[in-house]
Amino acid sequence: MSIKIGIAGYGNLGRGVEAAVNQAEDLELVAVFTRRDPASLQIASDVPVMPLSEVASMEGNIDVLVICGGSATDLPVMTPDLASKFNVIDSFDTHANIPQHFANVDAAAGPSGHVAIISCGWDPGYFSIARIYADAALPNGQSYTFWGRGVSQGHSDAIRRIEGVRDARQYTVPIETAVQRVRNHENPSFTAREMHLRECWVVAEDGADLGRIEREIVEMPNYFDEYDTTVNFISQEELDRDHAGLPHGGSVIRSGVTGNGAYNNTVEFRLDLDSNPYFTGSILAAAARAAYRMNQEGQSGARTLFDVPPAYLSAHSREELLAHML
Amino acid sequence: MSIKIGIAGYGNLGRGVEAAVNQAEDLELVAVFTRRDPASLQIASDVPVMPLSEVASMEGNIDVLVICGGSATDLPVMTPDLASKFNVIDSFDTHANIPQHFANVDAAAGPSGHVAIISCGWDPGYFSIARIYADAALPNGQSYTFWGRGVSQGHSDAIRRIEGVRDARQYTVPIETAVQRVRNHENPSFTAREMHLRECWVVAEDGADLGRIEREIVEMPNYFDEYDTTVNFISQEELDRDHAGLPHGGSVIRSGVTGNGAYNNTVEFRLDLDSNPYFTGSILAAAARAAYRMNQEGQSGARTLFDVPPAYLSAHSREELLAHML
Repeated sequence: MSIKIGIAGYGNLGRGVEAAVNQAEDLELVAVFTRRDPASLQIASDVPVMPLSEVASMEGNIDVLVICGGSATDLPVMTPDLASKFNVIDSFDTHANIPQHFANVDAAAGPSGHVAIISCGWDPGYFSIARIYADAALPNGQSYTFWGRGVSQGHSDAIRRIEGVRDARQYTVPIETAVQRVRNHENPSFTAREMHLRECWVVAEDGADLGRIEREIVEMPNYFDEYDTTVNFISQEELDRDHAGLPHGGSVIRSGVTGNGAYNNTVEFRLDLDSNPYFTGSILAAAARAAYRMNQEGQSGARTLFDVPPAYLSAHSREELLAHML
Repeated sequence: MSIKIGIAGYGNLGRGVEAAVNQAEDLELVAVFTRRDPASLQIASDVPVMPLSEVASMEGNIDVLVICGGSATDLPVMTPDLASKFNVIDSFDTHANIPQHFANVDAAAGPSGHVAIISCGWDPGYFSIARIYADAALPNGQSYTFWGRGVSQGHSDAIRRIEGVRDARQYTVPIETAVQRVRNHENPSFTAREMHLRECWVVAEDGADLGRIEREIVEMPNYFDEYDTTVNFISQEELDRDHAGLPHGGSVIRSGVTGNGAYNNTVEFRLDLDSNPYFTGSILAAAARAAYRMNQEGQSGARTLFDVPPAYLSAHSREELLAHML
């Protein structure tokens, strides 16, 4: 008996979830929901595409709904709403607003008897898991998160909003000497500038003032002004050829002591991803499996991956896990 | 209200648990148990040292007993026995015998209403956790475990049993080109020789036949014959000066594809430990916290870290975790 999965939202992330669900023997995609015209959507699977407004008609036919929306405006509304009708998964990633989002989702999921696992990507998500395990083993220490080398879609969008910019790609790049200082147990206090570089590849409109564009990028508050930023102007052809992908990754590193300070230790978790949304989608699919199992055993309410026993994410049986993975 | 911890067995690992428990505000060491003469033990804490044979007298006064014994002969007997009286933690690490050990412990812990979390070190343990998370996100892929650079106590002991050897230290060393091939998504099939080197530092008795000793080491079945092994003869002073520690570590690396094979991804978890037993002891202490919480909510029976929600290992509250670690 497969776990019946719905996908709400069909951008890059939705396609990533679809690929992961279709690859898993115990998961079965039953429908994709969209706010666009369903007829306009070409999906990779042979399942119905339905208007999101009709999702309630599928109550009872979907075990877990994976919500693939943006954290700024979509998920704060969609996840509580849908958690009152389905077990749901989201990848809410606005760190500062997680406690509020958790509370809102819990208020919807709990009374309706559903499990809602929020923030199931890789940060928050697998990086959070790396942080909690490292902290549990090394409470006396310090954790650092380095992102990249990878494409930040938020920063790329910010550049594209500058006048005279036709297209852009921004890579977040960890500074290797900073990574090494952490590994060397220096427990440094970094400024933002000391941990990451920002590397921009920009296609300008014909005749645009490149000097102004570069200035507007490097001085942009919050996005770039606290970093060392390089700006490279290239043609649209070059951008399409060399920067079409959405790679990402990074590392969580905790340096800590044991034996009352006698021994140094490093715990490091690293991701190197050719496609950020497809890897995130793959985690969401595994989280859907866990949400179903937790709901089956009577749980309800909001959860994060911190609450999920690792075995619940796995397609393998307890016997296989004990014999081959432990 | 602290969680009351007992430690059964006071070697390097027991000392590691003691240091970790004494550092945690929510854990309180109440007794150390030993099979040796309690009067012969100098422990770091101001708690009673009691004969292990009298451990039953502490029923009701200990929330979790952390068993620090060897996997060959101690734990197969001790863990089931003690799990009938206490919530227990062990670090059973004979991978091939884990299913049997789990069954034996479950049969004792379940009916008596205790939680017993077995195999809580770093391999099995944190490395197993790295494997299960990486596999859940990348089911289409391959996992590799590299150990070292670090001291293998089993291999060091094996060398010490050779005639004419006074003392020895064996380092397991991962082969960096093999690690790189995995990171490069080659999904190689390795022989044992292709993944690790074995580096031996040996103190010979005066007048011993060094050529024979070296031959006996490199040809030793199971331990060395399937590896490229280097043997270095040094003085006892040099061994004590340069090789006194028990560092270890290694990495779990999974290479896998998403998007129906379109995208390569690497998940890597790495440990670099100045002291193997103190880091292991620190994980055991965190697992004790989890066992107590699971038992408090009514669970009983054998468990592994696969069954433990990460939050249960953490000393931080749910609010702290959501706000600062997710």
